[in-house]
This record gives sequence, C-alpha cells and structure tokens, in this order.
Amino acid sequence: MTDKRQGEKSPFEEAIWIGTGNMGLPMAKNLLLSGIKLGVHNRTPDKLAPLLAAGARATSDLSGSLSRTPLVFSMLADDAAVREVASKQGGILDSLPTGGVHVSMGTLSPSFVEDLAKRHRERGQILVSAPVFGRPDRAQAGTLTIVAAGPSGNLDAVVPLLECMGSPVFRVGENPSVANHIKLLGNFTLGGLLETLAESLSLARKVGVSPTQLVEILDTAIYRSPVFRNYGQMMAREEFRPAGFRMRLGLKDVRLVLSEADRVEASLPLADLLHAGLLSGIHRGLEDWDWSALGQVRAEDAGAVRQNASVRHPPED
Amino acid sequence: MTDKRQGEKSPFEEAIWIGTGNMGLPMAKNLLLSGIKLGVHNRTPDKLAPLLAAGARATSDLSGSLSRTPLVFSMLADDAAVREVASKQGGILDSLPTGGVHVSMGTLSPSFVEDLAKRHRERGQILVSAPVFGRPDRAQAGTLTIVAAGPSGNLDAVVPLLECMGSPVFRVGENPSVANHIKLLGNFTLGGLLETLAESLSLARKVGVSPTQLVEILDTAIYRSPVFRNYGQMMAREEFRPAGFRMRLGLKDVRLVLSEADRVEASLPLADLLHAGLLSGIHRGLEDWDWSALGQVRAEDAGAVRQNASVRHPPED
Amino acid sequence: MTDKRQGEKSPFEEAIWIGTGNMGLPMAKNLLLSGIKLGVHNRTPDKLAPLLAAGARATSDLSGSLSRTPLVFSMLADDAAVREVASKQGGILDSLPTGGVHVSMGTLSPSFVEDLAKRHRERGQILVSAPVFGRPDRAQAGTLTIVAAGPSGNLDAVVPLLECMGSPVFRVGENPSVANHIKLLGNFTLGGLLETLAESLSLARKVGVSPTQLVEILDTAIYRSPVFRNYGQMMAREEFRPAGFRMRLGLKDVRLVLSEADRVEASLPLADLLHAGLLSGIHRGLEDWDWSALGQVRAEDAGAVRQNASVRHPPED
Amino acid sequence: MTDKRQGEKSPFEEAIWIGTGNMGLPMAKNLLLSGIKLGVHNRTPDKLAPLLAAGARATSDLSGSLSRTPLVFSMLADDAAVREVASKQGGILDSLPTGGVHVSMGTLSPSFVEDLAKRHRERGQILVSAPVFGRPDRAQAGTLTIVAAGPSGNLDAVVPLLECMGSPVFRVGENPSVANHIKLLGNFTLGGLLETLAESLSLARKVGVSPTQLVEILDTAIYRSPVFRNYGQMMAREEFRPAGFRMRLGLKDVRLVLSEADRVEASLPLADLLHAGLLSGIHRGLEDWDWSALGQVRAEDAGAVRQNASVRHPPED
Repeated sequence: MTDKRQGEKSPFEEAIWIGTGNMGLPMAKNLLLSGIKLGVHNRTPDKLAPLLAAGARATSDLSGSLSRTPLVFSMLADDAAVREVASKQGGILDSLPTGGVHVSMGTLSPSFVEDLAKRHRERGQILVSAPVFGRPDRAQAGTLTIVAAGPSGNLDAVVPLLECMGSPVFRVGENPSVANHIKLLGNFTLGGLLETLAESLSLARKVGVSPTQLVEILDTAIYRSPVFRNYGQMMAREEFRPAGFRMRLGLKDVRLVLSEADRVEASLPLADLLHAGLLSGIHRGLEDWDWSALGQVRAEDAGAVRQNASVRHPPED
Repeated sequence: MTDKRQGEKSPFEEAIWIGTGNMGLPMAKNLLLSGIKLGVHNRTPDKLAPLLAAGARATSDLSGSLSRTPLVFSMLADDAAVREVASKQGGILDSLPTGGVHVSMGTLSPSFVEDLAKRHRERGQILVSAPVFGRPDRAQAGTLTIVAAGPSGNLDAVVPLLECMGSPVFRVGENPSVANHIKLLGNFTLGGLLETLAESLSLARKVGVSPTQLVEILDTAIYRSPVFRNYGQMMAREEFRPAGFRMRLGLKDVRLVLSEADRVEASLPLADLLHAGLLSGIHRGLEDWDWSALGQVRAEDAGAVRQNASVRHPPED
Repeated sequence: MTDKRQGEKSPFEEAIWIGTGNMGLPMAKNLLLSGIKLGVHNRTPDKLAPLLAAGARATSDLSGSLSRTPLVFSMLADDAAVREVASKQGGILDSLPTGGVHVSMGTLSPSFVEDLAKRHRERGQILVSAPVFGRPDRAQAGTLTIVAAGPSGNLDAVVPLLECMGSPVFRVGENPSVANHIKLLGNFTLGGLLETLAESLSLARKVGVSPTQLVEILDTAIYRSPVFRNYGQMMAREEFRPAGFRMRLGLKDVRLVLSEADRVEASLPLADLLHAGLLSGIHRGLEDWDWSALGQVRAEDAGAVRQNASVRHPPED
Repeated sequence: MTDKRQGEKSPFEEAIWIGTGNMGLPMAKNLLLSGIKLGVHNRTPDKLAPLLAAGARATSDLSGSLSRTPLVFSMLADDAAVREVASKQGGILDSLPTGGVHVSMGTLSPSFVEDLAKRHRERGQILVSAPVFGRPDRAQAGTLTIVAAGPSGNLDAVVPLLECMGSPVFRVGENPSVANHIKLLGNFTLGGLLETLAESLSLARKVGVSPTQLVEILDTAIYRSPVFRNYGQMMAREEFRPAGFRMRLGLKDVRLVLSEADRVEASLPLADLLHAGLLSGIHRGLEDWDWSALGQVRAEDAGAVRQNASVRHPPED
C-alpha cells in the first residue's frame, strides 16, 4: 500500500528553496547533498550564509529566478506565510512556469492546501504537499518522516530529493491535502496521549503511586515508545518550561482538527475535551508553557497539585 | 528509583501454586525452572497434568499443605476468586503459618488488596502483590513485566522467583495495593489510546485518508510502539473479533478506575468518556467484541461507517 | 436596567415590510394596527393577499419605494436571505436614504449583524436588530417577546411599533449584535434543557419511574415552566414527529454558539455535548425529527430504548 | 395517571414523629392541624418546645411508644441517620408492631430505601417513602410537593395526613424507592439547569451581554420559571454565599445519580460533566459556597472572570 522507492534519481537539476528557519535551514542543507543546484531565498539575507557556504547561491530576484526554474520548495510556518509568498505580485503563482512544481513542506491547514492546489492547477502548475514529522535535530540528521501527496508522475520526480531530507517518505495519493490531514491527525494523537497521561498521573498522585515510576513501568510493560516516555516524564516531573511546543500552538492544531471535523459532520469528544482543557490552561496563564502542561490543568482540577500554577511558577528570566 | 536486583537467589525451597489457567499454567512452569519444589492446586485436577510432568506435585489436601509451607502463590481471575480461596475454612488465611508469605499475582482491585493485606497482617502473615503485564505468549516465554509491592525483606526473598516468570520486576514499595493501582492505570492508558485511535480513524475515514496507512505512518513518525500499531491496525481493519479483551472487561476496569477516582475525589473526564463509549457499545450489542470496537462506536456516531454494527456482523459460529 | 416604555407613539408614518412567511405575515398584520402606512414586498406576490386585505399596499418597485421611505423592516430566515435583499443592486443598502432605519427581526448570526451594521453606518443609515422569541401562534396574538438593540434615539422611534407585535420589548443597548447573541443564547438554554430531560428520562426508564409522571411531578415541584412541561412530555411520549424545530436546525444554532465561543476563547462543555449528541442523532437518521429526539439518542446510548430508531419509526407519509 | 385524592380522612388517630430540624419541625406542626395525637421525639429534647406548645406530647421512651403506635414518621437528614434510628436496639424495626407503618420523608438513596423496605416487610411492617420538594418556607406554609410510594392501601390511609404538609401529594406506585428516585432526578435536573446557566452566562460576559438582563429576558421569553430566574440571578450577580445548598451536597446527589446510573448501566454525560465541574469547584476552595458557584468554575475556565475565586472572596465572618 505504501510505496517507498529508494535509490532512484530525480530528473531535476536545479531548484529554489524558500524558508530557512530552524527546520528549513537543515533541510535545505541536506537537499544540497543530492547534487542539485539550489537557489535560496529569505527575507533576511543574513540567514542564508550557512547555505551559501554549503554551495547554494542566493536568489535576490525571486520572481526572475522562479520564472527560469521548474521546481520550488517552501518550508514556511503557516497558511499566512505561504499565502504571502505564493500570491503576491511576482510570487510563486505569478512566476513559476507552466509545468513547474511547488513542493510545500510546512504544516498547513488541509483546506488552505486544497485551495492552493486548485490555483496552481488553474495556471498549469503542480502542487506537491509534503509535510514532515520531526524536530530540528531530526531535520539535521536527515531522518525526518515525510508524507507526500500529489500527481503520481510529479511524486516520482520529487521523492528522490525528499529522501535526502528524511526517510521513509510515505506517498499518500494524488490529493495534496491528504498529506496535511495526516500531519494534523498525528498532532491530534499526541494530544490524546497528553490527555491520557495527564489523567493517569493525576490519579497516580492522589493514590500514592510515584509519577516517574508509573511512566517508566508503563513504558516498559505496554508502550515501549519514546514519545510516551518523553512526554510522560515531562509531566511526571512537572517540567513544562521552556516549551517545546507551546500550549497556544497545541490549541491551534486542535481547533484545526475540530474545524475539519465540523466540516464533515464528525463528532470528536476527545478533541472537545482537549479544546476545553487547553483553553482552560491558557486562561490560567499557561499560554507559553509546553502543551504538556495540560497535565497541570487536570491535576489542579483533580486536586492533585496546588491551584494557581502561574503564581507558583514565576515567569522565567 | 526502581530497584531491579537480578541474579540473587531466593531463600525459599518450596511453595504452593494456586490457579492454573491460561496465565497461571505457564507461569508456574517457569517457576519450576528455579529449582523450587512446587505443590500445585486446582479445583479441576486434570488441569495439573502438564505441571506434574514438569516436576510439580499435586496438593490434594490444600489446608494441610498450606500449613507446612512458608510460601503460596495465587494467580486468579478476580477479587471473588481470591476471596473464596483466601477466606474459606482451611483457606490461605486460615492455614498459612505465621510468617508465611502470600504472593498474589492476579489483576485485583486496589481496595480489595488493601483489605486482604490487613487481614494477613492480623494473622502475622505477609501479602506481596505482584500483578503482571502481558498475555499468555509472554507468560510462556517468561517475559512478563511484573510489578511487585510488599514489605522490603519479603520482596528480597520473592523477587528472584518472580524473575523466572518475567523481567524486569519493578519494586514499587511496601504498600501492596500500589502495585494494583499501577496495573489498573496501565489498562486506563490503553483505553486512552483506544479513544485516540477511534476518533482519529473516524475523521480519517471521513476526509479520505486511508486508515491502515494512517496507522503505519503515525507509528513510524511518532509512536514507534507495538501496542499503537497493533490496536491501530485492528481498528483500521475493523477486526474486532475474536476478542483479545472483551468490551465488557474493558468496562469493568474503567469502572474500577472511576471508583478509585471517586474515592479520592479526582475527576477524570477521559475516563468518563470511555465509560460512556463502552456502555454505548454494549447497548449496541458489542459486549463480546474486543474493546477496540470502541472504534465502531465512535465511527457510527461520526457517520463514518454504517449504523447497526451488530446486525451487519452476524455472530460467529 | 431593562427599559420598557409603553404607550409612546412612533414618529414614523410609513414603512416597508420585507418577508411574509409564517412569522412575518402575522407580525406585519399586527404592525398595520398601529395605523402606519405599510408597503409590503415578497418575491412571490400571491403571499401578500392577506396583508393587502388588511390595508397594506404592494411595493412592486422595491428600490424606488425604499428610496422614498425612512423605515424598512425585514423578517427573513437566515443570514443568506438578508444578505441577498440588503446587498443586491437596488437592495436595502443601495436604496435606503441617508438617515433611514433598517429593523432586522430575523434570527441571524451576531457576526453577520455586526458586519451589516457597519455597512449601514458607512452609508449614513441605521441598523436596529430586533429578533423575536415565540412561534407563529404568538406572532398572531401579538405576544412575541422582542429584544431590540441599536442607537438609542432610533430605538425610541421604533419601539412603539415593535410593541404592536409583542410585549415586552427589551432594549439591550446600542450594539445591534447583542440582541442576536441573546436570541442565540436563548436557543442554547433550550438545548441545555433538552439534554437535562433526555438524561433524566433515560435513567427514569431504566429504574422504573414513569416518564410522563416524572415530568408532571418535576414541573409541579420545581420548574413550573410551560417549556419544561412541553418538551418533557414530548420526550416522555416519544412524540418526535412532526418536528416543531428540526434537529438539523438545532445543530445549526449549537454550531453558531460554539463558533462565537471559539472566537472569544470560551469553552462550553455542555455545548460540545449537544453538538456531539445532535450530530449522532443526524447520523442515526433523525435529521428531520424534532430536536427533542436528542432524547432518543441518549436513551439508545443508555440502553433505555431499542436501538435503531429510524428503522423502528418508518418515515411519515 | 397521577392520583390526587383530596378531602379524604385518615383512619389513623395517633402517630410518632422523629426528626425536628428545619424541615421536620414545621412539617410536624402542620400535621398536628389534622387533629392527630402526635408523640414527638428528638435526641435534643429542647428542640421539642414549639411542638409541645402546639399540642404534641414528648415520647421519652421511644421503644415503648413505638410498640403502642401503628404509625411513625421520620424526617431525617440522610441514610445514616435513618439507619441509626431504624436499626438500633429498641429502634423502629425492633419496636413497631406488626402491621405498623413507617413513613420516611427524608431524601435518602433509592438503594437504602429498597433495603429498608425489605427489612420492614420481613417483620410484617410497611414502609411508605414520601420525600418532599421545597425549602423550610414551603414546609411552614404547608405547600411542599410530596411524592409518596408504598402499598396502595397504606397510601390511602396516609395520604390525607401528608396533605396537611403539602399539596399536591403524588402517588407513584407500590415500590417505595421509586419516590426517592424521583427526588434524586429532580435534583439532577436542577444541576442541569445550573450547568446551562453557568455556560450561558460565561459566554454572555465574554460577548458583552449583561448577565442580569439575559436572565430576565430568557425567563420572560422562554422559561417563565421561578427556579430559572432565582438561580440565574444568583449566578448573574455572583451571589454564591451564604449557601442555600452547599456545593458539597450538590456533589453528593450527583454521585448518587451516577451510582444509580452505573448500577443499571446507563451513561449520563451531563451528570459526568456536573461531577467534574463540582469536584473542580471543591478543589478551588468553593466547597461551602452554594452549588450555583458552578457558574464561577465555568466562568474561570472560559476566561470570563478572574481566576482564583477563593482568594478574591475571603471567607465570611
């Protein structure tokens, strides 16, 4: 069912890369290892230095460069950032030639991606959506998990390049937004794990079970999963800061899930629970804590820790 | 924090084993490998044959045997079964000598275990609670995960024997019921995983994401956990029968969790959700399906599969 | 706090009325009793006959009539219907003179009303929002409850006319959308009543309490409320058809409430429950039943009635 | 269906009354107006003065008096208090003659009442359960609502006496515990009203609707119910103290409802919500506030009022 062709070669010899943040920079660096000629673009040119040192060239005239290149990658933070660079005068939609391919790798909303794909099609261009799972360390190591969707022939051409950034690359069909649904569902399952841990640890505290030991035992006995162990130990030790993924961002993704669910008339009671729990956390002053501080919210509601966490934990310097 | 002494030797040279079901039989067999002399007891003597072949002897006079042995193991299905063999005339409480140790390995409720420990103490006997994680295959392979609690000196003496049945053996303190809390919390975290999967797969079906592919991708990208993959694929393929763990039993454990939570005044909204979902499943006729058929309940409520599952899936032969 | 001036006279001598459905027709008829000259408009002129008989005149040229009249009422089904008649060429926004007043009496979303008010202001026109509580029988009797918001001086001029249609008329300030929030919150409190009744009656059935007697007793002992009694008896007797207010419409209002809540970052767990319950009802085939058939959903989930209601209750002829 | 015989006369000429608290005292006083000879009993004899002044006589020897009287009323706070006076040596069960009738009017759990009825039957005695709706003011005015269940002939004899204390008296069949189920369901519907109001008012505050005006309008337009108006205005004005019914007591009743639901395998998601909300309130320090302070909990979670209510509202003197 899942097609992982490895070792094939991409027909592309050059590309443009847009977006050189914590994720985009190491991803572009790994792409250079494929031997492709890479033009890189950033609103703040200073950020490009490491890539220029690795063999990329800077594209000061983005519109002109786009018009001469059949392939552009974007790795941007959200819908708004992609909308800006895609829709502006001289942006991707305007400038990419007919038959050109846009590989969007950011975490975007499925409905935005559907709309973007349509607009590319109207111009004879192609959108491949290829969001990634993993944090900056995996981006550097080239071990991201990548989910790619788009027209089959274009995927054939692009996947060998994606494999420089991560492996496996999962191909999930012709409809680009399906890849973004999967990314979003992945974040929702993490939310479900947080709720599960939050309640388990609250009860553990109240009945006299050691939180850290509980996580160790359940991971050994049942889960054997790094993500269970890591989030479990963060919650057990109440290490909610600095945030790896802020509660505010977790709420954003849960809202996107609920919005998709509403669109297709699916009820998701656990997602409702997460929505209420994260909102309550934000109103308790935990907005900038890691979203695993959902554990703090549930523990307060269960009387397992003292109330008023934000007073107890003064802001960091 | 967690103490795993391995390679030490138990001072016990003989013991009695009560309970030779799917789990108890292979566990007792592995215990024999430690070289201990083992008397085995079952209400249905036929069941003892494999153990007698492996070197155990049958104890027809349970009361007499108990009175001459310092150590008895029980591996029984529930509170009621242990209550019966412990409290009856000539049962464990009556017959075990002063200083004798009862190692209870079944999945019992924490409050029953607390009460049993008290009654042993009143007679100068000792209760060690040592519930296990794992199914019959791991019991046979001697790879169960065991959580043991009881007085420290007694644990020192018993753990080397437990290590013949599984490893690691986690020691979680002096209070026997803590081990049972951990076992129960483990089952609750599985319930949380089921709810998470059930809702994710419902939404996936409605937005056009392949359920089996979703599970494969999220396991690779995030969870890397056999239990996530196994339950996920069961739900994705709607393979709810034969049941590995019946919905009715899942409900029983969720009720025990809610009952403990109520006792200590903790609210557990996810446990409430599981309670309602499993009850609804039972009222839809899914009582004897695997508890992962919670996925069926959520999918019906979300309009992701046809209603009236029990009509659609006729009973097995 | 709430201002109910009665007996005053409106300075307006003529007005236009748009929307002559089940509600609009009797409301316009009552308005005629004030002595005002009323031009009436409907896309289907036949519907105007009863109003013409009562002294109104037909406005075939809506745009021309609007330009000569300082006051227009609209009583339309939803945002879309008002958007159409307000925004089209020669519509209300185009044609109403500077200083003209638009009294919108339909159940519209607060955010739509905010936007409409802004567009009226930009043209020097005034929006008064005046949604109503009550069904066609109360519209005929002139006993609707009306909630009016808009600039104070304009309210002074309009309220005497509204009082021909219902009483009391509550004035709730200068911001038109506040009136629509109140209407929406009213429907949400009805949803809360339905959930309360649904669960009470489910439990009653299971423990052997007569549902109809329960409703009678609780209404006498606690509620003394016609709406409690009416909805309670509908549910107790399982009289869900024909629908007074369809489940699909109930869902629409709950979604509007959740959407407003999301906008201001409020969590509403009961609204989430209603959303899930009504959606589940729709997926069970109850879309066109009265929204009190939430009682059917809860009773099925509690095992208090047989499953598969839609099969049991064949469609009406 | 509901039988309200009025104006008939009871065959009983004398009775004993146990329990003279805020409710019991005025109820006994009204019972005296029927002309019955009443012996009254209280552990603290001082409390009897007002009844003696009204014509009752004190029964110092409870056991002896019971053995000579065919009818005893109890109006006690909870299961424990009734268990004590019914089961002790020389208590009601011991001393009431064969054929004697015990009318229990307190708010007791249905399962306790079932058990008590069985024990009375075993002794040839009869239990009539007759819990009441209403507060001390209605007890004084003789306008309680009373729900009575028990053997039909005994009800015939007792109802004329109950009608001195309140009216209507609803007869709900032969099974005494059914009356207690109805009382409990009544309190649950109040809880549902509180949740509905709590969320409505939270959203109202955030979108700029006046809470007091909202309650007034919705009561006029929809509910027309004193209990809606009273609780609504308490919440709108944040007048949670002194408590009319403490949050801790509200929690107790919700727990009883959930316990009955669990026994018959009914899921009640709104009751779960109330359970979690009230528990959270208790852990926030609101234990002794009125249970309508659920409005405070929901408002804090929605960010509609400041956190940490208990700090903000110092304890009363």
